[in-house]
Amino acid sequence: MAYQGGFPQQQYGGGYGQHPAAAAGYGAGGYGAYAPPPQQPAVNPEIQNIFRNIDKDSTGRINNRELQQALINGRGDHFSDTACNLMISMFDRNKVGTVDIFDFEKLYNYINQWLQVFKNFDRDASGHIEESELTQALTQMGFRFSPQFIQYLIAKNDPVNRKEISVDQFIVTCIQIQRFTDAFRVRDTEQKGVITIGFEDFLGIALSMCS
Amino acid sequence: MAYQGGFPQQQYGGGYGQHPAAAAGYGAGGYGAYAPPPQQPAVNPEIQNIFRNIDKDSTGRINNRELQQALINGRGDHFSDTACNLMISMFDRNKVGTVDIFDFEKLYNYINQWLQVFKNFDRDASGHIEESELTQALTQMGFRFSPQFIQYLIAKNDPVNRKEISVDQFIVTCIQIQRFTDAFRVRDTEQKGVITIGFEDFLGIALSMCS
Ligand SMILES: [Zn+2]
Ligand SMILES: [Zn+2]
Ligand SMILES: [Zn+2]
Ligand SMILES: [Zn+2]
Repeated sequence: MAYQGGFPQQQYGGGYGQHPAAAAGYGAGGYGAYAPPPQQPAVNPEIQNIFRNIDKDSTGRINNRELQQALINGRGDHFSDTACNLMISMFDRNKVGTVDIFDFEKLYNYINQWLQVFKNFDRDASGHIEESELTQALTQMGFRFSPQFIQYLIAKNDPVNRKEISVDQFIVTCIQIQRFTDAFRVRDTEQKGVITIGFEDFLGIALSMCS
Repeated sequence: MAYQGGFPQQQYGGGYGQHPAAAAGYGAGGYGAYAPPPQQPAVNPEIQNIFRNIDKDSTGRINNRELQQALINGRGDHFSDTACNLMISMFDRNKVGTVDIFDFEKLYNYINQWLQVFKNFDRDASGHIEESELTQALTQMGFRFSPQFIQYLIAKNDPVNRKEISVDQFIVTCIQIQRFTDAFRVRDTEQKGVITIGFEDFLGIALSMCS
């Protein structure tokens, strides 16, 4: 994996526990939950520098294209539009499709947490996640999926049949699974793994997740 | 609505019936269903010209960015990434994220059908679809949604509260609704408007629709 724009690979150095889902922001303070503080705290000078490097047009906001330019996956490709849109939308307090420096500080930490999670699961350090690695990752995140479903997840991301997914695909897949799981869980009140759902509710969930 | 790159607004001239969903490719020969013929028929010379104008890099394939450049909605904005990705993915036989001229001929006709559908429903010719127009459109497509759901559909596309959606948002919304409806319908065997669904199946549907 390579990072342009100064994203360090090891910012956290293992300072959190064994549960990658918590590290990835699934626990307290997960996405969408925070409100801007009344007074913005000062942003770490290192992050200020990184922000300025990424904000090529110096508008004081980072857009999807700028973020894509800054992030490169293990195939040497820029992160996908989908991945950057998804992550920006999680931290863009003003809902304008771009992040300011305060949003960016949180986004930056969030991306680094994901990179660390990815690295932990990429046991052979190939820069990709293969089927067995994805199975382990999702199991450790608390999911029990069939082998067919894991294969489907990979195939969905992998039209040329490399049988692996890149870091940006991994991040998007995990975030989408987590969101749909949350939506499912609140309706699965008896924890049966089966829900009964009406048409509009179903559509509403489905559409809310698609960008 | 404005079209760059020579998309005529009126190619079809009302040559189809009253049901916009059929016009929009929901009927026979809908998306994803066709296979390439063994021998490619000749492409209409007008469409060849349009193709060459859009294919700025002359690679013989139109990518998302090129299509976005060619399509402008009633706000003067280019069609969204999401809209162009979605439409390209429907006609990209080789699953490479771009269309060749044979794919493009079908894509071009498909887009023109949608533009015509949009124009029919934009009764005040504002270039946008407002709530009452969207209600009528979806009703004519055979849906019975609550007013709250229609408002949700608009709000989802309309962060700045203009209370209207643009043509590209309309196309994406209709395609997504139609796909989720198809997925719902095959599970709603008794036509009750309610289904019982397991976790993996639910996730699979939801993920398959998100790019
Ligand atoms: Zn910028
Ligand atoms: Zn690996
Ligand atoms: Zn091209
Ligand atoms: Zn209108």
